[in-house]
Amino acid sequence: MKVIIRPTEEDMGQVASQIMLGTMYQDRRVNISITAGASPRTTYAKVIDEVVKYPQDFTNVHYYSFDNVPLSNNSDGVTGRDLRNQYFAPAKVAEENIHLMNVEDHEGYMRGLADNGGLDLMVIGLGADGHFCANMPGLTTFSATSYTVALPEAFTTDPGLLALLEGADVPEEIVTMGAPALMKVKRLVLLINGEHKAEAAKTMFESEVDLGFPASILKLHPRFTVVMDEAAAKLL
Amino acid sequence: MKVIIRPTEEDMGQVASQIMLGTMYQDRRVNISITAGASPRTTYAKVIDEVVKYPQDFTNVHYYSFDNVPLSNNSDGVTGRDLRNQYFAPAKVAEENIHLMNVEDHEGYMRGLADNGGLDLMVIGLGADGHFCANMPGLTTFSATSYTVALPEAFTTDPGLLALLEGADVPEEIVTMGAPALMKVKRLVLLINGEHKAEAAKTMFESEVDLGFPASILKLHPRFTVVMDEAAAKLL
Amino acid sequence: MKVIIRPTEEDMGQVASQIMLGTMYQDRRVNISITAGASPRTTYAKVIDEVVKYPQDFTNVHYYSFDNVPLSNNSDGVTGRDLRNQYFAPAKVAEENIHLMNVEDHEGYMRGLADNGGLDLMVIGLGADGHFCANMPGLTTFSATSYTVALPEAFTTDPGLLALLEGADVPEEIVTMGAPALMKVKRLVLLINGEHKAEAAKTMFESEVDLGFPASILKLHPRFTVVMDEAAAKLL
Amino acid sequence: MKVIIRPTEEDMGQVASQIMLGTMYQDRRVNISITAGASPRTTYAKVIDEVVKYPQDFTNVHYYSFDNVPLSNNSDGVTGRDLRNQYFAPAKVAEENIHLMNVEDHEGYMRGLADNGGLDLMVIGLGADGHFCANMPGLTTFSATSYTVALPEAFTTDPGLLALLEGADVPEEIVTMGAPALMKVKRLVLLINGEHKAEAAKTMFESEVDLGFPASILKLHPRFTVVMDEAAAKLL
Repeated sequence: MKVIIRPTEEDMGQVASQIMLGTMYQDRRVNISITAGASPRTTYAKVIDEVVKYPQDFTNVHYYSFDNVPLSNNSDGVTGRDLRNQYFAPAKVAEENIHLMNVEDHEGYMRGLADNGGLDLMVIGLGADGHFCANMPGLTTFSATSYTVALPEAFTTDPGLLALLEGADVPEEIVTMGAPALMKVKRLVLLINGEHKAEAAKTMFESEVDLGFPASILKLHPRFTVVMDEAAAKLL
Repeated sequence: MKVIIRPTEEDMGQVASQIMLGTMYQDRRVNISITAGASPRTTYAKVIDEVVKYPQDFTNVHYYSFDNVPLSNNSDGVTGRDLRNQYFAPAKVAEENIHLMNVEDHEGYMRGLADNGGLDLMVIGLGADGHFCANMPGLTTFSATSYTVALPEAFTTDPGLLALLEGADVPEEIVTMGAPALMKVKRLVLLINGEHKAEAAKTMFESEVDLGFPASILKLHPRFTVVMDEAAAKLL
Repeated sequence: MKVIIRPTEEDMGQVASQIMLGTMYQDRRVNISITAGASPRTTYAKVIDEVVKYPQDFTNVHYYSFDNVPLSNNSDGVTGRDLRNQYFAPAKVAEENIHLMNVEDHEGYMRGLADNGGLDLMVIGLGADGHFCANMPGLTTFSATSYTVALPEAFTTDPGLLALLEGADVPEEIVTMGAPALMKVKRLVLLINGEHKAEAAKTMFESEVDLGFPASILKLHPRFTVVMDEAAAKLL
Repeated sequence: MKVIIRPTEEDMGQVASQIMLGTMYQDRRVNISITAGASPRTTYAKVIDEVVKYPQDFTNVHYYSFDNVPLSNNSDGVTGRDLRNQYFAPAKVAEENIHLMNVEDHEGYMRGLADNGGLDLMVIGLGADGHFCANMPGLTTFSATSYTVALPEAFTTDPGLLALLEGADVPEEIVTMGAPALMKVKRLVLLINGEHKAEAAKTMFESEVDLGFPASILKLHPRFTVVMDEAAAKLL
């Protein structure tokens, strides 16, 4: 595990964008899985700037979502929709380079990804409750490459989560890559920023591997880089 | 995870020896960690036969023990002594290609291994109680690359384990590589043979990741091959 | 470069089969390119024996030809036909795991291979005139990943080569992977056996890189293993 | 081969620095070989800025020179001296992370590098005459991993080259890594900038592999990235 701490979220983003772009500049297909959410905001700003300016250099890059929440009114699902807004649309990624996981055939999706060489890079965030991708406390198995789980109850009661559905029907299941899939990723980057993540960061580093705090498993990844700002690292 | 089942222990050994030799025939340093014990008997017979006949082809191969129990009367320790008897002596491995883990400076040992390129291959067995290397139920952490633990009490009461000490003082601590070190191994092979391992094999495949059955973590290795005989696979 | 010399062709075949099978036993797609011709006879005998007995262990292995000579009366072409007779048919390889290069769309073929992860292993032979694949003296470029060349004149005059056409029309062009494609193969194995190859083996080892002896370029491969019998090695 | 063209030398340096830093941020030893000379000026400025600010993140990075010209008055040699001035000193690289090639024991140097895992990255420039490292037209072999050659005559007549000796005795031999060593580098980056390199760039891309234009061999590298400015790319 490599831990890189930078003073600000802006500096963090620079480090993560160097890792992303350094991986993307290749003369072969590069498969990347990236997170939606707030953590990668500064990272994506830098990467998108380059991808939009020099689109010819990035036609080899394919993007795979690592989880999804189906929406009755949007075939992209919650993760797909958010990635589209945050990255695919501003970076003008071609439709054939976008691959979105779905509840119905996640095993076929994982096989297709494996047959195309697997993931070169995954960039994820850390949930304050210890979740990664959609591996959530109390709903996680570390044994499945990909799996579906019943929609966490919080989705039907937490106004913030409910809002993610944007008026769609409440889905029954969500889907996620699991720990064995992450272990196969050639390089795994975890972004953690902000003081509100400091407690979770400390737990991730110090806790034993534990289904109750899923991100505890990430420490076992063979090529794992954590990029944090000082606020998130303040309890280390 | 790739699972290869063969009718007999002899057939199993052939598969495992092909993986070992296929890895060893290279024009660069190859670092291998192999297990002592009964499981690899037929594997080693085939490999040793080749290594003794053509020693010039294997000067590039270095061997690292993945655990050890110190002995007051033998600086090799229990694991080193057994590897020497089972493999290093009959294969006539040069002393400078043998690296034995020790309680005192296991962190330096792991750094040295990493600086020499890390492990290309590890071949391990499965304990009937779910242990791998010296990661034993009730005494395991999945978070440490290498660690020492107090000698399990069984060593002082079980006649079979006591016999391993061959009259040496009972040591206070033993040392082992941990799960993060195994995840970094480029290829991990687990040998399981015999009906007396069938229950443990079933548990390993079916159980959730669990400190109480340490081998449950092995399923997460990104390039993991299990080689079994039919007797060990009978409950799958 | 690793050079492995064994007393007999039979012993050579054992080494090469260990490298092949060691690569094939994996839980992901494995792409292999193998040669037709006499050199791999003993290698294939051992591999086929295993593949026929345990077909379930090898559904992940895909085969790609590295060259071809089109035939008006057989869509497999000369290389495809010979591989089918020597390996695919006796090993009962499923049709969807067989990929044959063709003159018309060799660039699409190479792109498809790259998108499926590229070649894990290539096993080739050495021509007495220094050719490898269909890179022949006087007709070779080291700069193209794949290319077509006019059918060498020898094909229309040499009775042995003419016989390969089995009565088909004489084709205008043949196709081959070139040196840059070989350099990207993760592991390259060259089989050389028999006294009649001793002169070519010596030239390959000792000559400067030279378009007139195409195999001279192979020494630059980053993970290159030569497996020879003593007869072929007698001039070294 | 991936070709990345950017409007200015400054933009080029940004791309190359992303590749360098993306490789350096790892939790294992990283071995890098970098060029002296004018091409990497903007690249190094960005990398040094990061390395000086956050030295704790880069203690894992080791630097290896890929050639050298011995100096009677400076044990670093010409390449070592220039790397020290351009990079090691401003980046405050620890002495134990600096490895300089020498005429006397270049084979031991290469073995040591191989035993420490080989090169993860090499960043080189392109000579206007087609040389790379110290592989010069008329003085190159593509067959040696490392080799010495008599000092090119130009060194004793060209005032610019003579000046490099800074008053030291004219050495008899210089030393360089050769093509087989470069092919083993996990990632090879070639920087080309300025209109005065446009002709050489065109030749490198278009020529057949040729000892008279040594850089023609680079196209065969399995993971090769060329980073150019528009001035250097104007003849493509």
